[in-house]
Amino acid sequence: MAAVLRDDLTAVDRLIRARMASENAPRIPEVTAHLVEAGGKRLRPMLTLAAARLFGYDGLFHIHLAATVEFIHTATLLHDDVVDESAQRRGKPTANLMWDNKSSVLVGDYLFSRSFQLMVETGSLTVLDILANASATIAEGEVLQLSAAQDLGTTEAVYMRVIQGKTAALFAAATEVGGVIAKADEGSVNALREYGNALGVCFQIVDDLLDYGGSTARLGKNVGDDFRERKLTMPVIKAIAKADPKGRDFWHRVITEGHQEDGDLETAMRLLTKTNAMQDTRAAAMDWAGKARRALDGLPESDLKRLLNDMADFVVHRVV
Amino acid sequence: MAAVLRDDLTAVDRLIRARMASENAPRIPEVTAHLVEAGGKRLRPMLTLAAARLFGYDGLFHIHLAATVEFIHTATLLHDDVVDESAQRRGKPTANLMWDNKSSVLVGDYLFSRSFQLMVETGSLTVLDILANASATIAEGEVLQLSAAQDLGTTEAVYMRVIQGKTAALFAAATEVGGVIAKADEGSVNALREYGNALGVCFQIVDDLLDYGGSTARLGKNVGDDFRERKLTMPVIKAIAKADPKGRDFWHRVITEGHQEDGDLETAMRLLTKTNAMQDTRAAAMDWAGKARRALDGLPESDLKRLLNDMADFVVHRVV
Repeated sequence: MAAVLRDDLTAVDRLIRARMASENAPRIPEVTAHLVEAGGKRLRPMLTLAAARLFGYDGLFHIHLAATVEFIHTATLLHDDVVDESAQRRGKPTANLMWDNKSSVLVGDYLFSRSFQLMVETGSLTVLDILANASATIAEGEVLQLSAAQDLGTTEAVYMRVIQGKTAALFAAATEVGGVIAKADEGSVNALREYGNALGVCFQIVDDLLDYGGSTARLGKNVGDDFRERKLTMPVIKAIAKADPKGRDFWHRVITEGHQEDGDLETAMRLLTKTNAMQDTRAAAMDWAGKARRALDGLPESDLKRLLNDMADFVVHRVV
Repeated sequence: MAAVLRDDLTAVDRLIRARMASENAPRIPEVTAHLVEAGGKRLRPMLTLAAARLFGYDGLFHIHLAATVEFIHTATLLHDDVVDESAQRRGKPTANLMWDNKSSVLVGDYLFSRSFQLMVETGSLTVLDILANASATIAEGEVLQLSAAQDLGTTEAVYMRVIQGKTAALFAAATEVGGVIAKADEGSVNALREYGNALGVCFQIVDDLLDYGGSTARLGKNVGDDFRERKLTMPVIKAIAKADPKGRDFWHRVITEGHQEDGDLETAMRLLTKTNAMQDTRAAAMDWAGKARRALDGLPESDLKRLLNDMADFVVHRVV
């Protein structure tokens, strides 16, 4: 990685730690520490930093914006954590379940408002506009996902709208604001946004594949979570489209009715393979990685452009 | 009410309905309809409108800002709705409890992001700064309240910090941005903020009184909710400070240990009266209403100033 980005990432970490603290509510860093500090992949901040540096930015606000997108990401993770009834039924620890629910919500709100302060500090209304729109799109995607869950009629078009919202919108905005703060020309800013969007779509498809064990390099993901939560992700949607009557009955029972028994996850994975759903989903992921790379075509050659290219490879590499 | 404000409020309602809709997630208006459309008191939007009009504003952005503060308020209500374990134990309907939890969180996020879009449209970085800071203060107040709950050692100073955050910060910001958008001078903007803050503190103290039946005109509030949730509000804090050993044992059992039996709420209310906690809390509320009115002293005389004055009377009138 370019040395300049390594220094930038250190500055982002420092800013995140400083802004996460709350004099008035010391409990906040406790809740967020494991999420923000544990050195996640910092994929989204990296997009902002790389985009800004690609266009020669040498100010300080790319650090603010990188911290902003990480805070937004962490806030959505916390809000996703709000567990549903099924999680309780599955016998997870319920001792402090609801206290944790409430903490997740409120600390998520806190991080979101902190991100808001950080972006205001940049003084760029364009940046604020982009991130405000991204926030609305993310929330819409999450709500849409909630309504689509357990609905066997969910189409790939609906799935695409869900993931454009809940995942790709932030990837796109993260990359775009990097270009905007660096005063890149309009065409380049559009290219950056398109790249970020395609990368985000690819990332989410890969994530959904990994939930069915799409690779041996699973990076700690919990196989079967989506299945148990009866989420209609691309592999399942593709498998249902090609299911025979017996297969349809199976999906109806486990997804619509939610009657899941031992061995059902294995059956699901067998059906995903038999119908080529895994393979076809993998092809879709590669397709989006290609779109991301092609979006970079017109941008100036540099180490940073190569880094963005490599990130597309990295994201899709987890399953191919 | 001044006719101009009545028209403004109609415009705010129209804007709220327009921005609440979501093409991508039709479920959103379902969840928010009863909260936003049911014609709440619109106290906070009124503050914004009155402050802007008081300084002769004749643009359109006060409508945006009034809708903004109502969206923020509704978002926090939705997030407050995330029920805790005790609510379940008390035998509330649990059928869709968790689906509703998740909806509350995500739709709250959506409204918050919508409010963010509305304020960006005003193009005022000062306004954005004020509302970003208010958002952070609100979230801190909510988290602080969570940590203070069930803690008998909570002081009035902590209680004041909680309500300055969770309630007064938005009242203050709502009033302040009205002045800012109207380009009021700095002294007047400060006075408006101080007024809004005092009004918000007064409002919350009154609300906390009403939770122990502080008045016959209860406006639909559920007496005893705070008691059951073991919240340390001003009446309880004052009662504990003056409790005799038997009283302390009682508070320890019902608040710290959470062992509540039939008749305990009545005992609590008796102790609140016996120790003068109700009366002293009522005096504190009147004190803050007075502070709110005095903050208006230097502002130009007009119907709108009289309206702000009346609002202070209205807020405290619920308990005196």
